Amino acid sequence: MQAPDELREVVETSLAELELDGSLGALTEPMRYALAGGGKRIRPVLCLAVCEAAGGRVEDALRAATALELVHTFSLVHDDLPALDDDDERRGRPSLHVAFGEAVALLAGDALLTEAFGLAARCERPEIARELARATLGMIGGQHLDVTGADVPLDALHRLKTGRLLAAAVGLGLWSAGVPEPQQEPWRTFGEELGVLFQAIDDVLDGDGYAAELGADGARRLALDTAGRARERLQGLDADTTVLEELVDGLAVRTV
Amino acid sequence: MQAPDELREVVETSLAELELDGSLGALTEPMRYALAGGGKRIRPVLCLAVCEAAGGRVEDALRAATALELVHTFSLVHDDLPALDDDDERRGRPSLHVAFGEAVALLAGDALLTEAFGLAARCERPEIARELARATLGMIGGQHLDVTGADVPLDALHRLKTGRLLAAAVGLGLWSAGVPEPQQEPWRTFGEELGVLFQAIDDVLDGDGYAAELGADGARRLALDTAGRARERLQGLDADTTVLEELVDGLAVRTV
Repeated sequence: MQAPDELREVVETSLAELELDGSLGALTEPMRYALAGGGKRIRPVLCLAVCEAAGGRVEDALRAATALELVHTFSLVHDDLPALDDDDERRGRPSLHVAFGEAVALLAGDALLTEAFGLAARCERPEIARELARATLGMIGGQHLDVTGADVPLDALHRLKTGRLLAAAVGLGLWSAGVPEPQQEPWRTFGEELGVLFQAIDDVLDGDGYAAELGADGARRLALDTAGRARERLQGLDADTTVLEELVDGLAVRTV
Repeated sequence: MQAPDELREVVETSLAELELDGSLGALTEPMRYALAGGGKRIRPVLCLAVCEAAGGRVEDALRAATALELVHTFSLVHDDLPALDDDDERRGRPSLHVAFGEAVALLAGDALLTEAFGLAARCERPEIARELARATLGMIGGQHLDVTGADVPLDALHRLKTGRLLAAAVGLGLWSAGVPEPQQEPWRTFGEELGVLFQAIDDVLDGDGYAAELGADGARRLALDTAGRARERLQGLDADTTVLEELVDGLAVRTV
């Protein structure tokens, strides 16, 4: 079993060595800029860890995990655009449209999303591309609710906007490990708890969302309760889930 | 064998009845607005016609054909955005960002692209999603060349920007009909000629590209020569290609 930090290294290597389509030409430069932005790589690490815990090998899930990170990166590039969140910075660097212009950022995001599905289409299980597409649509639907200020409960919004891709990290790990659908349910319940945990801490750090609704202490309490439930879900599984428990603990105490 | 107009009806019905992911919520409205914009549906009709000519059934290629039109529609929505071509009209109606705002148009484009790959992932042959991804990347690479004003020959630009998706229409029709890869080559050569034909006429109608380079008459001559070669390619195939010949003739004389 590989520890979270080792899995993160595997992901970084896969992203650094990722072959991009030859006809993209100079567009690969902004794409690599976006991919090299660091970040916690939570989704691909979770995907690899679930695969290994469920009896697969890390390399079985590497394409799916990389595709997930491509989708996540695409979403950051487009969300930062002036038409959406209009963020000039991303992880301490100029965001993509600031560094390369808006037209290039738009196209680079489109290309990252397409590369993700190109990778997913080269995974052995067709369910992987299908689940990745559904999760991406959920994420986009959530972003649309957010942007249009629709009157929906905060947890419904989060379940789409961040929850769907995190849940897909678990799902893609399971398909990669060859876990049949009827046995996936308890793992997926864990993934849902993890989504809430991730978002609650995110909101504490950003001072919005749950932190605005429940206060910082309330949001932190929600995170701790959810982390406890996530750990319980793991303990109920007939599998070595020590690495996944480490991931839960890491998410619960993260400060960035 | 169904005539081009009948195939177009099949495509319109498929687009009108297309199920969009439930979590997209109100974002489905601008997506349907974009899809209902009419247009010649050349790519999906070509895909269905190739499938039928190559011995398959129209319904075998319907998902792939619909996915192609979704990719094409996504590209129009994003290309019209202020950051790219900044077009306020599309097919006689306000373009999507004029009708729904820039944020929604951006997200609707992303969702159309994702729905395309969701559909492709439900096709029987995994090659379909792979080829669709490669063709989409080529198209995006071409748009990037165009936007950045890179110094590349016009035909290289067109081969990417419009040629790749037209070529994929042929490719996806072949995979859908179950034509093995070694036997696809002559069909694919036809697809390349068709791409040049399409673009030459497009440029005659818009007064740019080949028409700017060769003059309107020069571009029209290029189109007629290419149509002739496309017909020759068809006649060299051991298949009933009457519908495809009709498509070539239709493209060669089109005025919109």
